[in-house]
Amino acid sequence: MENDLLKKLGTRIREKRKTLGWTQEDLASTAQIDRSYIGSVERGERNLTFTVLCQICTALDCEVAELTVGILELPQ
Amino acid sequence: MENDLLKKLGTRIREKRKTLGWTQEDLASTAQIDRSYIGSVERGERNLTFTVLCQICTALDCEVAELTVGILELPQ
Repeated sequence: MENDLLKKLGTRIREKRKTLGWTQEDLASTAQIDRSYIGSVERGERNLTFTVLCQICTALDCEVAELTVGILELPQ
Repeated sequence: MENDLLKKLGTRIREKRKTLGWTQEDLASTAQIDRSYIGSVERGERNLTFTVLCQICTALDCEVAELTVGILELPQ
């Protein structure tokens, strides 16, 4: 279950980055995070901390809530 | 900046827990997380990972997005 969540989050970060027309390098430098770390986050390979998630969202100029809408798929 | 975010998140988790009328012990057992860890998260002392945040939100039956709305206070 955990990997699914990290993969979903990583995919959403990638999609948001691409809507901005950014490379991983652009996101990495804006967020002041290592480029290879960004790559592993986007592949769902990193269980990033909340503050790193906030760093990435701030760089993408989007709220954490925007990236995580419905990510848990809780029963309605 | 980081501590502010963790404090805000912790306060929101506490508020959500209290709306359910739960003790920290109730949340800890439901989320299968140590009670003292829940206490430190609520005080903003823990930079929790994304999957732990998801565990807590699932236990509270609320989406991550619900707990993080506007937490970054990005310029409009």
